Order: sequence, then C-alpha cells, then structure tokens
Amino acid sequence: MTEAWSFDPRTGRSVPAPAESAPDEVDTAVAAAAAAAPAVAAASPQERAGWLEAIADALDANRTELAALADEEVALGMPRLTGEAQRAAAAFRFYAGVAREGSWLEAVIETGPGRPELRKVQVPLGPVAVFGASNFPFGFGVLGHDTATALAAGCPVVVKAHPAHPRLSAALFALAAPAAPPGALSLIAGYDAGRRLVDHPAISAVAFTGSQQGGLALWRQAAARERVIPVYAEMGTVNAVVVTARGAARRADEIAAGFVASFTQGMGQFCTKPGLLLVPAGSDLESRVARALTDAAPQGWMLTERIAASYASGVASLRAAGARVLATTAPADGGWAAAPTVLGVDAIGPFLEECFGPVALVASYTDLAEVLPQLPGSLAAAVHGGGPDDPEVPGLVAALSGIAGRVIVDGWPTGVVVGWGQQHGGPWPATTAPQHTSVGAGALRRFLRPVTYQDVPAAALPPALRDDNPWGVPRREVRG
Amino acid sequence: MTEAWSFDPRTGRSVPAPAESAPDEVDTAVAAAAAAAPAVAAASPQERAGWLEAIADALDANRTELAALADEEVALGMPRLTGEAQRAAAAFRFYAGVAREGSWLEAVIETGPGRPELRKVQVPLGPVAVFGASNFPFGFGVLGHDTATALAAGCPVVVKAHPAHPRLSAALFALAAPAAPPGALSLIAGYDAGRRLVDHPAISAVAFTGSQQGGLALWRQAAARERVIPVYAEMGTVNAVVVTARGAARRADEIAAGFVASFTQGMGQFCTKPGLLLVPAGSDLESRVARALTDAAPQGWMLTERIAASYASGVASLRAAGARVLATTAPADGGWAAAPTVLGVDAIGPFLEECFGPVALVASYTDLAEVLPQLPGSLAAAVHGGGPDDPEVPGLVAALSGIAGRVIVDGWPTGVVVGWGQQHGGPWPATTAPQHTSVGAGALRRFLRPVTYQDVPAAALPPALRDDNPWGVPRREVRG
Repeated sequence: MTEAWSFDPRTGRSVPAPAESAPDEVDTAVAAAAAAAPAVAAASPQERAGWLEAIADALDANRTELAALADEEVALGMPRLTGEAQRAAAAFRFYAGVAREGSWLEAVIETGPGRPELRKVQVPLGPVAVFGASNFPFGFGVLGHDTATALAAGCPVVVKAHPAHPRLSAALFALAAPAAPPGALSLIAGYDAGRRLVDHPAISAVAFTGSQQGGLALWRQAAARERVIPVYAEMGTVNAVVVTARGAARRADEIAAGFVASFTQGMGQFCTKPGLLLVPAGSDLESRVARALTDAAPQGWMLTERIAASYASGVASLRAAGARVLATTAPADGGWAAAPTVLGVDAIGPFLEECFGPVALVASYTDLAEVLPQLPGSLAAAVHGGGPDDPEVPGLVAALSGIAGRVIVDGWPTGVVVGWGQQHGGPWPATTAPQHTSVGAGALRRFLRPVTYQDVPAAALPPALRDDNPWGVPRREVRG
Repeated sequence: MTEAWSFDPRTGRSVPAPAESAPDEVDTAVAAAAAAAPAVAAASPQERAGWLEAIADALDANRTELAALADEEVALGMPRLTGEAQRAAAAFRFYAGVAREGSWLEAVIETGPGRPELRKVQVPLGPVAVFGASNFPFGFGVLGHDTATALAAGCPVVVKAHPAHPRLSAALFALAAPAAPPGALSLIAGYDAGRRLVDHPAISAVAFTGSQQGGLALWRQAAARERVIPVYAEMGTVNAVVVTARGAARRADEIAAGFVASFTQGMGQFCTKPGLLLVPAGSDLESRVARALTDAAPQGWMLTERIAASYASGVASLRAAGARVLATTAPADGGWAAAPTVLGVDAIGPFLEECFGPVALVASYTDLAEVLPQLPGSLAAAVHGGGPDDPEVPGLVAALSGIAGRVIVDGWPTGVVVGWGQQHGGPWPATTAPQHTSVGAGALRRFLRPVTYQDVPAAALPPALRDDNPWGVPRREVRG
C-alpha cells in the first residue's frame, strides 16, 4: 500500500489521502467491471437513466459538503465549486434523458423480398477506463461527463482518481457506487495503477481529459496493446480568438475585458482558455487588454504544485521565445499562487502550444490569410466582430471551422453548455479522436460500436431490434 | 517514370500497364484534391448525388467491356465480374440516395432563453486517400464503397490503384473523372506513391481494404504523422461459423455444401470468407465437408503471383502447425492456379489468422465456453442451428456479437448487402476503426467530424444549419 496525500493549494499543507491502488486492486476492479458488463449492457435505457438520476440526487443532496471538500483540494472557491457540482448533477440528468430517448442506439431494421434481413444497433464496447482531470473536479472527475456517458451507453466504468483531488474522488465514489449495479463503477488511484488499467485486456476504451503530454502517452500506450482500443483524450489547446477590424474599432473595451475575464477564469485552468487574441495591426487592443488585466487583478491558486511550477516555467519560456510582458498582476499570498500575465508577440509561430494557467498572448496581424493557416487544431475558436453587418465574420467562421470543434461569434470559448448541439473536441492535436465529443448527447457514441444481425430469429435479437420494441426506441425501418 | 505491368492470372503473361506515379505526380494529385476540397464540401447533397449517379451511369454503359478488362487482370470470370460491376453501379446510386436524404449531416439546432445558441453539423474531413483491394476490382476498387462514400460526404478522393488490376483502374478512373468536379477524383499508382500519399499533410483520412499486414502498416504510418489522421483499414479475418448440435443433426449436408460454396467462392479471396467451421464433437461434418469439396471441385486462379505463393506457403504452415488435410482438389491448369483444400484441426489456438484463398478449417468442440473466448475480432460470424426452436442459437448470437461486426444465422458471411442496416467492420484486428463500417449508409461517417457553431449569425452558418434549410435536410431542433 503506497501512501498518498491531499494538498491544500492555498498553503501547500497536506493531509492523508486514500492510498494508491496495488496491482491486485486494479485487477479486482477490472474483473468486477468485466463481470458486470453483460448486466450493464442488458439493462434497459430506463434502468440506466435511473442510475444516473440517483447519482444526480446524491450529488445535489451533498452539494455543499462536496464543494467544501473540493475547495480544500483545488482552491477554486465555493461559488465556482458549488456551481460546478450543481451542473454535474444537471449533466447526469441530461444524460439520463439522452439514454431514455434512445436515438443513440441508431437502430435500423431493413427488410425486403429476396434479400437477407438486416437489423443493426449500437452495442456497448465493455469496461471503460476514465482518467479525470485536475481542473474540473466535478465536471471531469469521478462523476463527470465520461462516467455519465459510459454508463448511459451501457459500459461499466473504472475511474482513475486525479491526484489533485483524491479525497473528493473517494467521496464522490462513495456516494455514487450504491446507485449503480455492483461492479458498474469502481475507483482506483495512483500513476502505476492507471498504467496497469490501460493495459488490462478487459478494458475496451479509455477516456481522458487533461494535458497533451498525458493524453498522448495514454494514446501511445493503448496503441501498443495486442487488442488496440480507442483513447478519447480531450486535451488543452490554444483556442485562438480573432478580432476583426470593425470589432477592434467598435467593441475594443468590451473585447479586452471579456478576454481577460475568460483567460483568467479559474486561474486560466480551462482546456478552452482563449490563449491567443489576434488583433488587427494598428489597433490599441494590446494596451486595452493590459489595462483590463491590471484593473481586474484576479488572484488565486494553481491546482497542484507541479502545475504551479509548470506555469512559472511556461511563462518564462514564452518570454525567452520573444514574448513581451504587457501586464502582470500580483499573485495571491502563499501556497501555489501564480501571477496572471498577458504577453505581446510579433509572430505566432513559436507560441502555438497551450500554457496552462492565467496567461494569454496578444498578436497583431496584417494579413489573416498568412496567420490562420498556422493555427493548430483546437477545441474552440472565436471571432469578435463589429456587429451583424461585419463582412469579415462569415469567412472567418468558415476558416476557423476547419481547425476547431466549436466556433463562437462575439463570445468566449470558456463555458461549455451541455446539450444536444454541443461538440467538445476538435482536430488533432486537440483530441486523439476528432470525430467524437466528450460533452453533450453525442458523447455516448464513444463507447458504442455497431453490430448487424442478419436473418437472426426474434428470440436471439437484442431488445432494441425486436419487432415489439420493448425499449421503445426510435428506429429507422427500411423496406428494400 | 517506373514501368508497370498488368498480369493475366490464367497464364502469368504480362502486358504494359500505366506507369507508377512519380513523387511530383502524387503531390500534384493531392494539391488538386486540396484545391477542390472547399468546392466539394460546399456542393449540396443533391449535387454530390448527381456526380455519383453519373458515375453509376458510366459504369452501367461500359459494364461488359469493363468486366472483360477486369477478367484479363483478375481471372474471376465474366459472370462474377459483370455482376460485381452492376452492383458497384447500384452502390453508387444507393449512396446518392443516402447523400440526398441528409441524416448523415446529423444537424442539430439547440436554442433556449438565457443560453448560447448551438448549431451542430458534420463537416467533411478533407482529401481522402483510398487504397483499393485486389479481390473486388469494382466493389473495393477505384469506384468502390470508399470512393463513393467519401465523395458523398463531401471529400475529394485520391485513389492508389491496386497493382492486381492497373489497366482496369485506369479505365474506371477515365470514365468517372469527368463526372466529378476537377480535382475531386485522382488516381495514382505504385507502392512508393502510396506511402507518399499517406504522409502528405493535406490528406485527412485513409481508407484501405486488404490484408492485416497492409492495413496495419498504413495505420502505423498515419500514427507517425505530425497531424495524426484516421485510417479505416478493413482487413481479412477468420470469420468463424458455429454449428449447433441440432444443426449438425438436422442440416449436416446443407451446411457442408454451403460451407464449401462459401469458402471457395472467388477462390476464397473474400475478406468475409468463413475460415473456420466449429462442429460438435461426434458429428460427421468433417467427412461431409470433405466430400462436398471433392464433389464441387471448384477451380480458378489466384489474383496475383504473390497471393498464389502466399496461399501455398500458408497452407503449408497450417499443415506444419498440425492441421490434417481432409480433402484437396485439383487446381486449374497453368498460371496462378491453386488447390482448394479443407483441413481438420484438434484445437483452434494456432489457427486464428486468415489464410487468404480457398482453404478452411473444421474443428470439433466439446465445450463452446472454452472455444468462443479464443475467437479473435472478425468482420462476421455465423451460427448454423437446427431450426427456430434451437435453444443454442440465442446464446451463440449474443456471444458472437461480442467479437464480430455482423452475426448471421443459417447463412454465410460472404455476400455483403449494401443498405442502411449493414455493418461491414468488426472488433480489432478486423478493422483499425471498429466503430465504423466500410459498406452501407453508415460508411459516410468515416469522413466527417462534428462542428458546433455557437451564436453564429445566419450569414456565417453553413447551409444545413440555416433557418431556411436550403438543403432540406432532417434536423433535430431542441428548445432548452
């Protein structure tokens, strides 16, 4: 048993946390998940929705205590954490509704004279390994989008707790486990345990939210398995924001203040943080952004000691690469505080990797046709224009849709609404699976694969494909 | 310019074929595809359907000449090749209908008070590299499912011709290219040209049909790119068929004859060939299958000299690993003929890789619970039972749906119907992307990714998401 610790970012002080999982504990969790898989897959969408709603109820009933515990471990403050816990419960209820609605099963019944009968449905992949993120202890933690959508899709889940919030992870697991069938939800802890989890032959998919380094490491590990499995790694990106000429002329102060609020929210610890503001040459947005940061002077702490150190070295690297400090404000006192900073750059080429934390770049452009092709794949991108008649907006939206999973006009990429219309993902290297989303109704698809049943008698068909449609799901019926 | 040759499998004689593509010819083809990508993506589903239908018309108008040319290169005989050409044209018309129907765009419009407006749609990935197969010169060739579905999805295509039918590939390209916009369809030839194609930064996805070795090599190559792209490799598998006790008791001769017909069809050169028949211990299916093969005595030629050599060495390896020859029949005269063979094995462990060609195994089982977990991921699997009351069938269908993309009862895996209900794919290592299909309406999804437009004004939205719905596509409208 390896000891583990829970740290308070405000002071750096630690208290004991649940121990890291031994190899046999990982194997036991996966064996339980594999044993539960047939029952979880056989449970009706209604039953699965019931599990998710029971978890949502437990989250709501314990919201304040959970947020307080989270705040001890991540120091994001009670308003943010209480709100995030509330939204996590709402997300579980949303996915319960998605599960019930049933279109994610993509059921097809195709019949016709003189041809085989084809019935097709999405089936669960099997046990899913979930690696939670540091920065959203509720939204992308033990009870985040990955866990909810895997259960909704009919897959047992083994979560690897994030070391930034081990006590909260244990508390979330303790309240949720009784709401799901035995083996449908397990929790492990520790880096080595996580590696063992991904290598386990019974694991069928991996969902991860976090850094490029961490996500790509898991992707490479899974690609080296004998049976290669999908890795859905949603990773931090630079998320460029383009200001048009009219936007700079008409809305400069609003844009400057909005940019600062967005890139410093949660101390910049958002995978959708707008890391780069592209402004027309000759605009005074650089100085307005600098003033807005100085006026706002946000303070807070980084999630972990490692993240605080990476932030400091990241800002130093940006400066060494030629970025100029436009403004920097005083850090909070003590612990893993960090100084919010905005930098000016003359060319974007060397500055296209995410620096996690409250830093962002402002770059002037003269020709967007030269700049836009340099932008890497991102989760989101935004355009700030000068009103509904701004002639630059349509072309920019089209160009940015080529590099981002979500394109926003006159808004900021932080804040990811949970719904049917959400895409939280984006071209490589924003995610390792750009055709999928980790938030919204589409997120169930990550844990499913299609199977066609050809000339299979009624008694051997899965419920969603039987003529009497016991699950009551929508189906495409085709007569050939 | 590297010379290339077209070979007649019946004699081994060669005639000149179109030269292999030089590096600059590959780059020119990809540049043309990249230049065409915006226009292809902007074309309405109706326009794309028009291209596909024009290609189908051209296939139909030239069917007999094309089949004759194909027969000179692959020696599969005029009835098969004429039928395959006809089915290829029908598939293009099917995908034209799928394109027009529009549900593949998965359009969502989500609005509500106090929240951002989200509009989501599937957008084309960009230029697609298609690697055709040797064994289906029409169905998986220059004008096969990959090309049709990539164009339907709005992606330009660069096909790498298969060296088994270079003259047919050139003829198919010549008749199809005028039906598509400039740059939307290109053809290259040669192994090195294919490698260069996959590495080209403007290529966004790869579709491949063929061997494990070839598919996994492309998958590894694409994974080493700076921007990793999806590889849809659909590869040959063992495709097990399980005979129940009642099936063996009641339908033995029918099963034996059907098995022989299926595994020797097209000289066993099908990725869905049933390579393994699992029969209850004590049944006499081994001898009945041997007799059925001896009675049928099918004759033909392998597609290429290399495939003929691989077949001979593959059968020798199976025998060296302990397989007993139950029956083998005389090969055709001359050229790359091969001897159809059925082998008996006592344990399936060493025999779970595909041997491409007219060979299959018969294995007796006493406990299916021991045998089934050994079966690898396969494109298809089948159960042969003893009638509608056979109590073994439901459990077997459920078990086989865990390892196959398609499960068939009382039928054979060869023969893949094109439709809305088809899944042609399967768990690793049947394909490198088990959540996708290379045949049927779902095949378009391989070449699309979702983009969400948040608070984007009407003038900047893609057509499928505008309020006036100019493409007339089905949409999910959600009021939050």
